[in-house]
Amino acid sequence: MKQILLKILPLFLGGFLFSQATQDSIQFKNISDEILVQGTAYENLRDLTQNIGHRLSGSASYERSTDWAVQKLKEAGADKVWKEEVMLPVWERGEESLYIKVGKGNWKALRMLSLGNSEGTKGKDVEAEIIFVKNKEEFDRLPASAVAGKIVFFNYAFNQTFINTGQAYGDAGIYRRFAASWAGKKGAKAVITRSLSSAVDDVPHTGMMRYDQDDTVNIPAVAIGPKSANELEKALKTQKIVAKLNSNCGMKGEKLTHSVIGEITGHKDSKVTVVSGHLDSWDVGEGAHDDGAGIVQSIEVLRTFKKLGLKNNHTLRVVCFANEENGVRGGNTYADNIQKKNEKHIFAIESDGGGFTPRGIALVMDADKRAQIQSWRHLFLPYGLHNFELQYAGTDIEPMRKLGVPLAELVPDSQRYFEIHHSEEDTFDKVNHRELLLGAVAMSQLIYMIDKNW
Amino acid sequence: MKQILLKILPLFLGGFLFSQATQDSIQFKNISDEILVQGTAYENLRDLTQNIGHRLSGSASYERSTDWAVQKLKEAGADKVWKEEVMLPVWERGEESLYIKVGKGNWKALRMLSLGNSEGTKGKDVEAEIIFVKNKEEFDRLPASAVAGKIVFFNYAFNQTFINTGQAYGDAGIYRRFAASWAGKKGAKAVITRSLSSAVDDVPHTGMMRYDQDDTVNIPAVAIGPKSANELEKALKTQKIVAKLNSNCGMKGEKLTHSVIGEITGHKDSKVTVVSGHLDSWDVGEGAHDDGAGIVQSIEVLRTFKKLGLKNNHTLRVVCFANEENGVRGGNTYADNIQKKNEKHIFAIESDGGGFTPRGIALVMDADKRAQIQSWRHLFLPYGLHNFELQYAGTDIEPMRKLGVPLAELVPDSQRYFEIHHSEEDTFDKVNHRELLLGAVAMSQLIYMIDKNW
Repeated sequence: MKQILLKILPLFLGGFLFSQATQDSIQFKNISDEILVQGTAYENLRDLTQNIGHRLSGSASYERSTDWAVQKLKEAGADKVWKEEVMLPVWERGEESLYIKVGKGNWKALRMLSLGNSEGTKGKDVEAEIIFVKNKEEFDRLPASAVAGKIVFFNYAFNQTFINTGQAYGDAGIYRRFAASWAGKKGAKAVITRSLSSAVDDVPHTGMMRYDQDDTVNIPAVAIGPKSANELEKALKTQKIVAKLNSNCGMKGEKLTHSVIGEITGHKDSKVTVVSGHLDSWDVGEGAHDDGAGIVQSIEVLRTFKKLGLKNNHTLRVVCFANEENGVRGGNTYADNIQKKNEKHIFAIESDGGGFTPRGIALVMDADKRAQIQSWRHLFLPYGLHNFELQYAGTDIEPMRKLGVPLAELVPDSQRYFEIHHSEEDTFDKVNHRELLLGAVAMSQLIYMIDKNW
Repeated sequence: MKQILLKILPLFLGGFLFSQATQDSIQFKNISDEILVQGTAYENLRDLTQNIGHRLSGSASYERSTDWAVQKLKEAGADKVWKEEVMLPVWERGEESLYIKVGKGNWKALRMLSLGNSEGTKGKDVEAEIIFVKNKEEFDRLPASAVAGKIVFFNYAFNQTFINTGQAYGDAGIYRRFAASWAGKKGAKAVITRSLSSAVDDVPHTGMMRYDQDDTVNIPAVAIGPKSANELEKALKTQKIVAKLNSNCGMKGEKLTHSVIGEITGHKDSKVTVVSGHLDSWDVGEGAHDDGAGIVQSIEVLRTFKKLGLKNNHTLRVVCFANEENGVRGGNTYADNIQKKNEKHIFAIESDGGGFTPRGIALVMDADKRAQIQSWRHLFLPYGLHNFELQYAGTDIEPMRKLGVPLAELVPDSQRYFEIHHSEEDTFDKVNHRELLLGAVAMSQLIYMIDKNW
């Protein structure tokens, strides 16, 4: 009997699994067809970027975008839509300029952007000689006397040999984040950093920096484009160069604003799955890939569930987070609130790597759950997703890690992201409609599987 | 003894295979680093597209591009560079226009392009009522009396539900290629086809059409953009619309021109591996993705072998084919010549799907060889190539199939290609330097493996 069972059982199971897999692949195709043909994400992104534009935390345009998100979530068919209060730090840019003078030459303007959260020069010219350092090690060897009173120029390049550009971004990212603090501690007047960019152009990229709590002085930090950085390094090898920086940026207190949330109530229970992006952006460009894409893709997931009548067992919630770029207050507040309300979350995913062709899903969860999702790989392969090995999750949902929520992030193709990220170039015309929609397809498919199986 | 051997042998083999795999992965990394940091493909493409521009077969700019290719192959380090004579058909566009008049309204110009190889109106206005047909089946049901004297408008849309856009291109492609012949046989005056485009814009796309040998009249064929096509179909539901077409295009005899070939002689034997693209393009845009990308990537492969001193066992040959777009005479001539000269070819690959992030390699060869290449998948995965299942090969190398040459084509991400393909939009600014270089990396890695193992 045991022998027979051992022979027969796999046939039954095989039949069951096969028909299950077939059903799932049919549903995957329904989801894909609906989004690729009827999807509203691309037109929503056009609307968000062209009619609202960039959305710096605390700005009037950010506030308008929260009303926009409420409206779009309602149109997508959410049962409930609300704003969640978030108190956030306000940083403003204002006027800014950077000039250099090579030897006894004339002042020459460089394209530049102050880094986010940086203090400025309060509208006064700060003039000093530039000293160049290649990297942290070289800087650490300099005595304070060599740094004091100078403007330190860090020209650590984006490492083009990494295939995943996110790795190069991480590698070079410490200079954007910490260089001002390092240099300030040795008495520098300001820092100039090379933009975190894979491009071969001269576009400056902003992004968050921070001072250490023990910094006695918070010196200004600005970024210049790759081309200017290369030319500056070259010129500094033979000549003395003076820089003149003037900027009005700085922190301007706190402000009460909102994340925006919409959901389709669970048909079986009130456990929650989250699909998300962040509504804020930097104050340059249009925040199209970062992260307008994640917002419209997340709304698309909800619209698709509603449109196809995929009755979600658990509550399917879209969260449009506030303040990812310079504080993560939206993400932190959300995690605090679900803990207070004791809301059981079974899964959260964010799309915050740009609206490019999806290549996989990064997973942060226990080994069993990861293995289960990886076992669905064959269902995703026809949609171009092959990589389920990476282990990271979106910045805004990371605060839920401590609550044990299984986390994920959509992994889009990374090649173009850091050419436009945090810069004037992050505009709607850089987004391809099919690439954007395919990201929404992948997230919808994953949420469908998780909602059904978890 | 047998028992012991069975236990020990795998250990030896395992060790051998492991160290072999490690060596290969080190060489893969060397190739990748060289190209991503020192690669010249992107600047070569800038030069080709900005200083020569589009390169229609038989045009003066095509001729200039052959000299350009000779020069670039020499710079890349080829031992031998030569031009191979190709006799090709010449097609010229000339002036062209398409106006429509809805009901009793005014003439309105539509953006349009005559299809390649189409005959024109010889500069005369051809005016007729437009009749709309959805697809071939609908057209086949129409009696000749309903078609005769009319301009037939085929609005078969690019099917957005296919994940690989090449599939949608194939699906809709029959209308571009054959609609004029179908309609001509029933006495139509001309055909208007919807452009083969995945875009949501109004850009017209050209591309090759052909007449049947038994066509008694060769009627003009033009393409309009997706937006115009949608509007025209909608308007035709309620109103009579007349079109007025005027075009000077047509075949202008034959011309002797060249493919361009460069090689590094084999260090062991004179068997040949081919890496290739096509040098010609349509006469709109800059032929950047189609197929300037394949040309500069192929030259990059040769440069990389030379630069890294990867002594190729077999002759590594770059072929820049003439006349892919409207005759494939370069490819046919090449295959004929190697047969005449009895030149043993062990492998040929073409890159002709655009300079986008590579996703895999399509393979046309016997099962054993395919399985061997698929067994190298783990080496390619870190470079983002995961798909080795597709079975097709570049148009220009297809003529070598009858000689039994194992063939392949680079498979780039397909999402953006058919937005720009064969149109004014196929310009250098649509090419990302990292995506382009990664294609050259993948082809170099594959040639490295094949040269060593075959």
